[in-house]
Amino acid sequence: MGYYLLSYSIIVNIILSGTLICSKWTNKSASDLSWTKKAAEEAEEVASIPCSGHGLAFLDGVSDDGSPVCECYACFTGYHCSAISRPCLADADSGNPLFLEPFWKKHKENSSVLVSAWHRLGYSYPVEGKMSGELQKYIFKLHELVGNAVTEGRHIVFGTGSTQLLNAAVHSLSSFSPVSPALVLVSIPYYPLYKSQTEYFETTNYKFKGDVSKWKNKTDGAQMLIEFVTSPNNPDCQLKKKVLQEGPLTRAIHDHVYYWPHYTAIPAPCDEDIMIFSISKLTGHAGSRFGWALVKDESVYQKMKQYVSYNTMGVSHDTQLRMLELLKVVVDEGGKKLFEFGYETMKDRWKRLNAIFSTTSRFSLQNIPPQYCTYYQRVRQPSPAYAWLKCERKEDADCYEVLKASGILGRKGRLFEAEDRYVRLSLLKSKDDFELLLESIKLMLTFEHEISHPKVSSS
Amino acid sequence: MGYYLLSYSIIVNIILSGTLICSKWTNKSASDLSWTKKAAEEAEEVASIPCSGHGLAFLDGVSDDGSPVCECYACFTGYHCSAISRPCLADADSGNPLFLEPFWKKHKENSSVLVSAWHRLGYSYPVEGKMSGELQKYIFKLHELVGNAVTEGRHIVFGTGSTQLLNAAVHSLSSFSPVSPALVLVSIPYYPLYKSQTEYFETTNYKFKGDVSKWKNKTDGAQMLIEFVTSPNNPDCQLKKKVLQEGPLTRAIHDHVYYWPHYTAIPAPCDEDIMIFSISKLTGHAGSRFGWALVKDESVYQKMKQYVSYNTMGVSHDTQLRMLELLKVVVDEGGKKLFEFGYETMKDRWKRLNAIFSTTSRFSLQNIPPQYCTYYQRVRQPSPAYAWLKCERKEDADCYEVLKASGILGRKGRLFEAEDRYVRLSLLKSKDDFELLLESIKLMLTFEHEISHPKVSSS
Repeated sequence: MGYYLLSYSIIVNIILSGTLICSKWTNKSASDLSWTKKAAEEAEEVASIPCSGHGLAFLDGVSDDGSPVCECYACFTGYHCSAISRPCLADADSGNPLFLEPFWKKHKENSSVLVSAWHRLGYSYPVEGKMSGELQKYIFKLHELVGNAVTEGRHIVFGTGSTQLLNAAVHSLSSFSPVSPALVLVSIPYYPLYKSQTEYFETTNYKFKGDVSKWKNKTDGAQMLIEFVTSPNNPDCQLKKKVLQEGPLTRAIHDHVYYWPHYTAIPAPCDEDIMIFSISKLTGHAGSRFGWALVKDESVYQKMKQYVSYNTMGVSHDTQLRMLELLKVVVDEGGKKLFEFGYETMKDRWKRLNAIFSTTSRFSLQNIPPQYCTYYQRVRQPSPAYAWLKCERKEDADCYEVLKASGILGRKGRLFEAEDRYVRLSLLKSKDDFELLLESIKLMLTFEHEISHPKVSSS
Repeated sequence: MGYYLLSYSIIVNIILSGTLICSKWTNKSASDLSWTKKAAEEAEEVASIPCSGHGLAFLDGVSDDGSPVCECYACFTGYHCSAISRPCLADADSGNPLFLEPFWKKHKENSSVLVSAWHRLGYSYPVEGKMSGELQKYIFKLHELVGNAVTEGRHIVFGTGSTQLLNAAVHSLSSFSPVSPALVLVSIPYYPLYKSQTEYFETTNYKFKGDVSKWKNKTDGAQMLIEFVTSPNNPDCQLKKKVLQEGPLTRAIHDHVYYWPHYTAIPAPCDEDIMIFSISKLTGHAGSRFGWALVKDESVYQKMKQYVSYNTMGVSHDTQLRMLELLKVVVDEGGKKLFEFGYETMKDRWKRLNAIFSTTSRFSLQNIPPQYCTYYQRVRQPSPAYAWLKCERKEDADCYEVLKASGILGRKGRLFEAEDRYVRLSLLKSKDDFELLLESIKLMLTFEHEISHPKVSSS
């Protein structure tokens, strides 16, 4: 009996010792953490606040009692965002790229970053001036693997979003014009900021003139003409080439913020003098305000760098660090994870939207054909960021109001210098936003159908 | 015997169980960490790289083999920055506020932040537009406890550094001028960016005209006059008032980025129409590019917000989150920790510099009297950010060159629109920088002394 008890006790001893050693070993790295533990715990605590999948809590989002609470997506309410707040407009106005949020929630481990309080206090990075050399390396790597831009022989300028770089490019190009002002042109329909920004910051060197078609052949060099070329275009998502013919004073700023496999086929790498990209539509981090320009001409590059320096003295180091961590994840496995997620999501949304509008002749969507993509090495289906909707009926001249009457908020055609018969609907917001948009469109079409074909009473 | 063995084994069992429970319990928080662990470990690993106190390793600072290495401060070299690289210029040119780095290394636990990959992807914050409401709250709290600015009835605009806000203010004020252009003025000596930035972004609405003294009495309203008032001033660190007399079209932009207890007595809270502050000189985070403006007039405020929106579409959310965590630490205990550190460091530097220059009549430093400070509630000693050095000898008309000949790099008086008999020496760089500066000055003065009083040979 004593012998059995002793054997039993010794076995328990061995098991306990093993468990203890094992426990120490598995906890090694975590228990080694010291000064980072607090920040890590805070981040996990906030992330664990349950918002029913219809909201998020953030470290800097705080309620009256001082602790973060759920910030609900549109049309949801309550402490855990579990209640639907209806009636609610289907807001498809802004280009907020929230469809990528789930991707980052899934890849949270590799893409989070702990920023120490002493991280890069000074104005500059070593060697590379005000731009992180590592981030530059990853941006070039990304373009090479996606094949959307020629990087050879290009200089890179970082900006506080592509927004800053658009005006930096106009400002710089126009400073080389022998005759003032240089005229800033663009083909219709176009992103409204080109006009509002260029007019707001207008100097004696440049002036916004709008519609490029009127200037197509006037490229004899009497005046510098600067054309914004947006490809894929915002709002209609078409791949575009510049309209102006070559000329001694013809310049172009190629805005390629949507030229990623989420939104379009990549037929070939762009090979232009000034190409602008941004993190916003690539990874969804619109709030981080980070963009970059690839610039061929050394003197234009120097001027653009000077613009950023006099304007904001560079780009936030906090953002540059975070962008680096994100791009490491994107570049991992050749970008497949992010682009597959982005493409599948947007393709599915476009398909469903098309299916609904195919049942009516009152509205039409832009046509985007399937196209061969050098990144996927196959023909791919359309997956645009926006629907460019047209109201086809004569009486529906104000398409925005037609949609609004059915609880749908788009962006007026007029804002893109197009007819008000057009409305842009954003497809890159959150899943909730998109589902509500579809639901509202369906309801609108059903209602319309009932008016056109009233049910005959059986009596 | 068997009984003793059994008892012994049971006791060991109890001890092991206890240890295991204890171990689980103490590791609770750390072992609970999941997705943040990797980022936390990476941050601690980089922070633990030994750089001999003469350099730092950063997450985004990488060597050829892909892992971060020490980035050595000026004049230090080697894998661990332990070797002195001489001869080396004493670089006192830039206003890089690295003297605050040790403070943040000391308070690393509360001031670090873990940024999740899905943190605030969208363009806006709820309720508050493009600015974090929490951060606004802490900025107001800080001004109240320091007593350096009246916040009541003020609107706040965030900018990508004070740099962006300076031109935003000029642009906005001048847009209300009935006669164009508004003239931008400043008293000499002044921060060079006022001229370079205003000229670089010049529109038909405003023009840089420099020296305000010529316009002092011309405030009859024929033209809008906009005066930059920098207090404490850069480069001479004097508290300043505006020079222009009141007039119907007289406006002022008060640049108060140095108006913190590190650098100056706080005689009273500023109560101006436009007051600009920045994180750079407050916490040392120059690379984060964050500033704010307190604005009285609603329409000027709206214009400045519009400027930031068209220019960069807001301020990085990553930076706003980090600034919030830093300000929480600053506000903690009434700001005492940071300001005490800042004041003591700068006061000590000024005292040592003065002691050295008091031995010569060849150079003189600006005079800053001790002054009553409402924050400390006592008379405090001077602790300026810069020395505004004057070469007193007739033949030393180019003071910059005089210093450079002794291995000291300052910033030429001419850049501040002053005489070249003046040089600005930055006192807010790192400890190493400052010690080398002192050493070089001492050497210069010893050498000069030997020339003036050559040793008589005893032979």
